[in-house]
Amino acid sequence: MRYFIELSYNGRNYFGWQRQPKGATVQGTLEGALTTLLRRPVETTGAGRTDTGVHAAYYVAHFDLDEPLSDPRHTAYKLNALLPCDIAVSRIAPVADGAHARFDALEREYRYFIELRKNPFTRGSVWQYYRTLDVGRMNRAAALLLEYDDFTTFAKLNSNNRTNICHVMQAGWSVSEQGVLCFRIRADRFLRNMVRAVVGTLVDVGRGRYDVGEFRAIVESRDLSRASSGAPAEGLYLWDVTYPSGLFRRSEGGACMPSVM
Amino acid sequence: MRYFIELSYNGRNYFGWQRQPKGATVQGTLEGALTTLLRRPVETTGAGRTDTGVHAAYYVAHFDLDEPLSDPRHTAYKLNALLPCDIAVSRIAPVADGAHARFDALEREYRYFIELRKNPFTRGSVWQYYRTLDVGRMNRAAALLLEYDDFTTFAKLNSNNRTNICHVMQAGWSVSEQGVLCFRIRADRFLRNMVRAVVGTLVDVGRGRYDVGEFRAIVESRDLSRASSGAPAEGLYLWDVTYPSGLFRRSEGGACMPSVM
Repeated sequence: MRYFIELSYNGRNYFGWQRQPKGATVQGTLEGALTTLLRRPVETTGAGRTDTGVHAAYYVAHFDLDEPLSDPRHTAYKLNALLPCDIAVSRIAPVADGAHARFDALEREYRYFIELRKNPFTRGSVWQYYRTLDVGRMNRAAALLLEYDDFTTFAKLNSNNRTNICHVMQAGWSVSEQGVLCFRIRADRFLRNMVRAVVGTLVDVGRGRYDVGEFRAIVESRDLSRASSGAPAEGLYLWDVTYPSGLFRRSEGGACMPSVM
Repeated sequence: MRYFIELSYNGRNYFGWQRQPKGATVQGTLEGALTTLLRRPVETTGAGRTDTGVHAAYYVAHFDLDEPLSDPRHTAYKLNALLPCDIAVSRIAPVADGAHARFDALEREYRYFIELRKNPFTRGSVWQYYRTLDVGRMNRAAALLLEYDDFTTFAKLNSNNRTNICHVMQAGWSVSEQGVLCFRIRADRFLRNMVRAVVGTLVDVGRGRYDVGEFRAIVESRDLSRASSGAPAEGLYLWDVTYPSGLFRRSEGGACMPSVM
């Protein structure tokens, strides 16, 4: 029996999703709790990697069991009691045997939050950045991302991506009532480090280091050294993962939001 | 010269606002930073006490200086650089000599946030409470608070309030899109511990321990032992302090919100 598990995690205390020999990871922590609860070794396959310190408002993984769970809701409830406070499971649902959390994902969405002032309540949840940013200009630059599909500029050196091709369907900034900037980007896939490098470079556009034409030249250069330094992990959230509707549908309220209001 | 200072603080690491011989307080930390920056001892008078662990999205204090500040905005900016990340100053503004942050305050508003599920991003910012609550019933009970002015039931034993009379102008619950419950209460004054005791008792109404009639009887009893145990400090925020408009007007964006969205 194969199950999809929907979860959210605060990445602050983890070396990312992916299991490692040393250091706490979300995958390692989740597998430990599943193994304890179900009294047999459970391995999970996640929708993708997230880097050290990066959050997931919504994440999907799959795992297999020899016998079906009698009450998946109850299993999720007990799992939450076992897991630390920075990982929350919202649902465990049976899926078709071949369904794959990573390979069947059609699109992913990331969001990045920037707050332009000191705020005692959002530390660790946003990038607090105390300069003026020209959001209109950042949006004109962000729109260019939809015209390209080779994102080598924003790839990580020595990462083992077979290809640096990504199809970006959405990329843009909005400003909340609270004055917090939110960057949303959707694509079929993302390269390691890509969103943070894109955000860092767009912020350099917003503060006047580059104009929109220079941003275009940077994207076209496919030269890793021309990307700005990556924006800090604390502002980045994996926000959505989409599957073919016949395979898996995201549950209502399946994500946890970094907001109390 | 008298100044009003508007600030926000995350109460998690403080023994409340009020200066104490031992333990970090917001007032002590603020006065330390002002004294360092202005190179002379500065004492502040706050709009009121907040208890250990309680937050303030908006707080006002006053202080006096022999010579006027040449650039209060710049002073606020430098003060933020000196203060720890959990205290943020939004404005320093000159006021009339007799203006008093505590005695001239007309109304105060507190808000209390409850989230009914595990959320890795709101720990320390809300009360995570995993039961079902009947918000309609909690609102019918909350409305009764406007009919009474003696809040002895919700006072703290041995506190040195001269009177337990408070005029409540607003008291009610709302539910955000995210499913977070928010209790708003406005009054001319609050007793120590009062909001947390009111919230704790209303939650007992919401989970079915008391009906609305019993809640009324508890309020009327003026018996401290009949209030439920107080809701945890982490969900409570001083949210607003109002002064006569000729004396002081709250600045736009003077508060920091516990939200990134």
